[in-house]
Amino acid sequence: MALNTFGQLFTFTTWGESHGPAIGCVVDGVPPLIPLDKTEIQTWLDKRKPGQSRFTTQRKETDEVEILSGVFEGKTTGTPISLMIKNVDARSRDYGEISKKYRPGHADYTYEKKYGIRDFRGGGRASARETASRVAAGAIARKVLNSLIPSGVIIKGALVQIGDKPINRKNWKVSEIDKNAFWSPDTEVVASWEQYLDEVRKSGSSIGAIIEVRASGVPVGLGEPVYGKIDAQLAAAMMSINAVKSVEIGNGIKSASLTGEENADEMFMENNRVAFKSNNAGGVLGGLTTGQDLVVRFAVKPTSSILNARQTIDNQGKQVEISTKGRHDPCVGIRAVPVGEAMMAIVIADQLLRHRGQIG
Amino acid sequence: MALNTFGQLFTFTTWGESHGPAIGCVVDGVPPLIPLDKTEIQTWLDKRKPGQSRFTTQRKETDEVEILSGVFEGKTTGTPISLMIKNVDARSRDYGEISKKYRPGHADYTYEKKYGIRDFRGGGRASARETASRVAAGAIARKVLNSLIPSGVIIKGALVQIGDKPINRKNWKVSEIDKNAFWSPDTEVVASWEQYLDEVRKSGSSIGAIIEVRASGVPVGLGEPVYGKIDAQLAAAMMSINAVKSVEIGNGIKSASLTGEENADEMFMENNRVAFKSNNAGGVLGGLTTGQDLVVRFAVKPTSSILNARQTIDNQGKQVEISTKGRHDPCVGIRAVPVGEAMMAIVIADQLLRHRGQIG
Amino acid sequence: MALNTFGQLFTFTTWGESHGPAIGCVVDGVPPLIPLDKTEIQTWLDKRKPGQSRFTTQRKETDEVEILSGVFEGKTTGTPISLMIKNVDARSRDYGEISKKYRPGHADYTYEKKYGIRDFRGGGRASARETASRVAAGAIARKVLNSLIPSGVIIKGALVQIGDKPINRKNWKVSEIDKNAFWSPDTEVVASWEQYLDEVRKSGSSIGAIIEVRASGVPVGLGEPVYGKIDAQLAAAMMSINAVKSVEIGNGIKSASLTGEENADEMFMENNRVAFKSNNAGGVLGGLTTGQDLVVRFAVKPTSSILNARQTIDNQGKQVEISTKGRHDPCVGIRAVPVGEAMMAIVIADQLLRHRGQIG
Amino acid sequence: MALNTFGQLFTFTTWGESHGPAIGCVVDGVPPLIPLDKTEIQTWLDKRKPGQSRFTTQRKETDEVEILSGVFEGKTTGTPISLMIKNVDARSRDYGEISKKYRPGHADYTYEKKYGIRDFRGGGRASARETASRVAAGAIARKVLNSLIPSGVIIKGALVQIGDKPINRKNWKVSEIDKNAFWSPDTEVVASWEQYLDEVRKSGSSIGAIIEVRASGVPVGLGEPVYGKIDAQLAAAMMSINAVKSVEIGNGIKSASLTGEENADEMFMENNRVAFKSNNAGGVLGGLTTGQDLVVRFAVKPTSSILNARQTIDNQGKQVEISTKGRHDPCVGIRAVPVGEAMMAIVIADQLLRHRGQIG
Repeated sequence: MALNTFGQLFTFTTWGESHGPAIGCVVDGVPPLIPLDKTEIQTWLDKRKPGQSRFTTQRKETDEVEILSGVFEGKTTGTPISLMIKNVDARSRDYGEISKKYRPGHADYTYEKKYGIRDFRGGGRASARETASRVAAGAIARKVLNSLIPSGVIIKGALVQIGDKPINRKNWKVSEIDKNAFWSPDTEVVASWEQYLDEVRKSGSSIGAIIEVRASGVPVGLGEPVYGKIDAQLAAAMMSINAVKSVEIGNGIKSASLTGEENADEMFMENNRVAFKSNNAGGVLGGLTTGQDLVVRFAVKPTSSILNARQTIDNQGKQVEISTKGRHDPCVGIRAVPVGEAMMAIVIADQLLRHRGQIG
Repeated sequence: MALNTFGQLFTFTTWGESHGPAIGCVVDGVPPLIPLDKTEIQTWLDKRKPGQSRFTTQRKETDEVEILSGVFEGKTTGTPISLMIKNVDARSRDYGEISKKYRPGHADYTYEKKYGIRDFRGGGRASARETASRVAAGAIARKVLNSLIPSGVIIKGALVQIGDKPINRKNWKVSEIDKNAFWSPDTEVVASWEQYLDEVRKSGSSIGAIIEVRASGVPVGLGEPVYGKIDAQLAAAMMSINAVKSVEIGNGIKSASLTGEENADEMFMENNRVAFKSNNAGGVLGGLTTGQDLVVRFAVKPTSSILNARQTIDNQGKQVEISTKGRHDPCVGIRAVPVGEAMMAIVIADQLLRHRGQIG
Repeated sequence: MALNTFGQLFTFTTWGESHGPAIGCVVDGVPPLIPLDKTEIQTWLDKRKPGQSRFTTQRKETDEVEILSGVFEGKTTGTPISLMIKNVDARSRDYGEISKKYRPGHADYTYEKKYGIRDFRGGGRASARETASRVAAGAIARKVLNSLIPSGVIIKGALVQIGDKPINRKNWKVSEIDKNAFWSPDTEVVASWEQYLDEVRKSGSSIGAIIEVRASGVPVGLGEPVYGKIDAQLAAAMMSINAVKSVEIGNGIKSASLTGEENADEMFMENNRVAFKSNNAGGVLGGLTTGQDLVVRFAVKPTSSILNARQTIDNQGKQVEISTKGRHDPCVGIRAVPVGEAMMAIVIADQLLRHRGQIG
Repeated sequence: MALNTFGQLFTFTTWGESHGPAIGCVVDGVPPLIPLDKTEIQTWLDKRKPGQSRFTTQRKETDEVEILSGVFEGKTTGTPISLMIKNVDARSRDYGEISKKYRPGHADYTYEKKYGIRDFRGGGRASARETASRVAAGAIARKVLNSLIPSGVIIKGALVQIGDKPINRKNWKVSEIDKNAFWSPDTEVVASWEQYLDEVRKSGSSIGAIIEVRASGVPVGLGEPVYGKIDAQLAAAMMSINAVKSVEIGNGIKSASLTGEENADEMFMENNRVAFKSNNAGGVLGGLTTGQDLVVRFAVKPTSSILNARQTIDNQGKQVEISTKGRHDPCVGIRAVPVGEAMMAIVIADQLLRHRGQIG
């Protein structure tokens, strides 16, 4: 079990540092004969790419993906698919301050304590830049899902809260999500978010957010009790994304306040098909999919890189102050949307293959 | 990777159905020469055991554990430790109704759809009875931790909310947790919880809860970026527990509402040791432990077994009603406390061994 | 990856020491709805059982298996199957000598050096008694194969050499294998083996052997290049059996002496089916099955427990002599036949499930 | 468990096809702070590189390795190390014949049957070119071993037989191995091998060989009973190398012919250290290293690409003839020597880290 590998049958292994020559991943276990072109991966990478609005980091990365193996004459061959993305805008600048000081909220201190060494350039391995590899792998997972499930699986993420400003769920329109810089399903909240984030950005601060990812078209019965439950794998997948501090399935934390009567999703038959009156479970019972929409939410903490000085220590144990200069995302939650989608696609694809293995 | 196995170096594999002859687990990867007696495992099992107060199920299980292998002359030998707990109170009754109807909120429907068969007796494999094996494995994990870390690791869970009634965190007293039937750290809330749960129980209903587990004494640097991050492994561990619908680390979902300034845990030196002004991170940065208390919270949904009739379908696709007779926990969250503790101990033990492997 | 677990989708985890209360295993990943009765497992265990002829150990074990989970109303449910075999004839005798001295050829020294402790009673975990669990798991693997491949997979092992006395391959008759105490496919060699083994046994010595296991009816294309090749997994499987020192596939070691022309298995069409003129490859090309018989051979060293005194050291580093008293197999290779069959069945079943997962 | 990943703590994942743009691997789990320069990897790659004598393929590959991640300021950081080797001499020629016909002894047929597609260019994923990635990973494994075991671990492979011409073991001189084109430890055999291989090459044929790899300086107690035994892992490692058909440990197949007295490696004390009178066991007892030299041998079949026409079928099921044109190794066994060394280094490094994890 490689430390940087996720999944059991559909797997991917990521590598690369923020300011190294390149980042990439090896996607393994992909079924053969699936048409795959790098433009299909690029589409999703472009969604995550920095610098697309004033609300994300201004680092200029083209995030162009290369397929180095595993595809022959436009189709997957069942062998490992190696993907590489060169780092273009890894500025060769003076890293002096962050090389010695531990930025609060960052992994500087823990990496140095664990390994006795850290590639401090741009956050090294701990940088959110690693998530580009996830999005690339997720693009392949989507291809797998839509190849194996002809009716299609639609995975769609959205930003549902910035700071203490949630969307109004009554305004949810899937079709709006791709039309604003925040992936908000609620157009009414967009203006207030813009204004708020402008303030945050100008003040050199940052703010947290909540992302919701939904998958529809997922077959019933995916998941592997009891330690490969699909909700457990989703929890691991989302919590492994940089800055994520909570994961919820369906009603999530609100389940605590409900009675058994309120929480039960009653079942009935509709047009000869099994239906549920509600989806409090978020599409999972006993760790297995119910066939309803799979609903996952996760909270992202505010970017730790802020202009305002914070108290910290350096690697000599001296008390110092630090303020992060340069480019940063005022709300990393925005760019976490396509990453959450990718992880959802990967988990479902992995579980689908495992299910086929045991059940046929 | 066995489906019913958790962990990478410190691992355990559970087996058994609620009303089968026995349940148990195989704990593998345990370092040798650790003193281990079955009474040390029993202590923790007794904490999870049903029927200890009127607020938990009245099923009478002694939950007596047997050690079948891996211990010689009172010490672990480094070979797999097989533990077995016989099922005593598996009533031989008519299972007629639940054998054919899908109880809303239960795994009946998903298991049957996945496998085409299910052991419906007492919930079979999906029963929370499986968690007894976790508690047994967790007892061994605690022994490992306290053997390898002489200063000790203390893992303590508590119930922090029942329904919409949270504890008052200002009243938190660790010493109170073991003194009430709810594992509440706040004695003041106990009376209101008792009254509330009595109502819930008498009305045949159920209610959700929130559990918080804290580990202190954890060394800095445990965790394996990026897909073996300790928070990701904790999320998987907790989400794999029956009825859990959310997992939070540190500030968790509240992180979304904070600014970078509010959320950063500033660092300073105190008595020549690194210290933090706060612990919003819950003891994890970049997937690695910071040396602060590791803080995990999870929400448990209300027990799905309720007396009040709910609408559902049967395995012939017919519309029916169901109400669950017999014994049930009005708030399964209570008995989830020792289970959450066990999973925390297991995750830390596993990460500690992995850390030793790579770092030495 | 538990240390005592084998397989990826069809997995089993064994536990137990030779003279502990019991041994057993947890078989996980078994597809549901496969009819399974403990008598079907018992049949294979009886084949491995000690004391069936004067050529195997006289330890009296009934090797009765109990199914503790995973089977409901006579069928597998897809959940882990826990099997237990109680140790009956674990004589409570004085273990004094072997508790302190390292028997040459045994694992005494290495276990003690690794773990700092060893359960010396009957060889503890290193005893060949562990292989009973493999045979039990193998019985389930056979059921899986014959359930998923209606045309059937036949796995048959045979002893093809004792000491320097090989069988005459021209006399190979499958139907004879079960009719003699050696699992010899050549009836003509039996008398000379009997005489030879009687001498070996009476002189208190022991002798090595070679086992060949063949599987017919295996579908083409099983195996997972490049680190899950079926021949690599078979090699690991067989080499993990006690006392095994070599593993060969097809022509094995003789391949070294052949030219490309001699070694190539030419292909042709026969009755509209692909056929091969020879099977030098032993049914594997590129780590994938060819559809021909899968042919594996392995050599088993002579039993290390011999009556004649050998020079060794004790755990105080003192020069001593040791001779093993009591019951032993003069040729452990005989009882390795059903174990090799079991491991073959397990590897094929595991690869079949993995193949279904990725390929469908 | 990615299909193309080997190892548990020290792991590597390979990717790439013979005639694709590049091949490479991701080495994960490497301890931090180990000095690593690409020239150290290059040294070993050069040893495996084609075209170094007339006895290996004339394909011209420089096999220049690039380190893309995981190394910072000349030292490993504990994060994944991505290595890439560009394919230079992937001739863009007409692949017509091998694209449709199945070459006997090659993986053409099995890959096409498994996947329904195969990258036939140069053998695609099944090409021995994949082993360059193993050699690169093995170079890092050597660095790990020599960093963690200050007294050093020396791993040395040698060719011990070509066709039916074995070396004379009495002539074994380690210092000679690197001085001839065959890695022969016996200088006397070299002339006859040269003459023989020239004949083989000129006749368009090929021949098999046997390789022996020895590791000295290995600590006692490495290995993880019972399914992670070091001999089982070595068997899997070697058998996963292209064209390997047998794996032996120590006496290997000859163990079958020995008595218990002959086979036992008697122990004694020498200069206050444990010593053995012989090493029939090849350095492994009970799956654990004894501290003696670890000795593994494997047979490599003759190259399947031969000029002489062989009968086969095409992908339409038609009877055809095929003869392989172009460059090939008359004896692939020669270039398997550095690959075997690499796999030995990898297995020991992996087991060393796992041992540190469990034992400390």
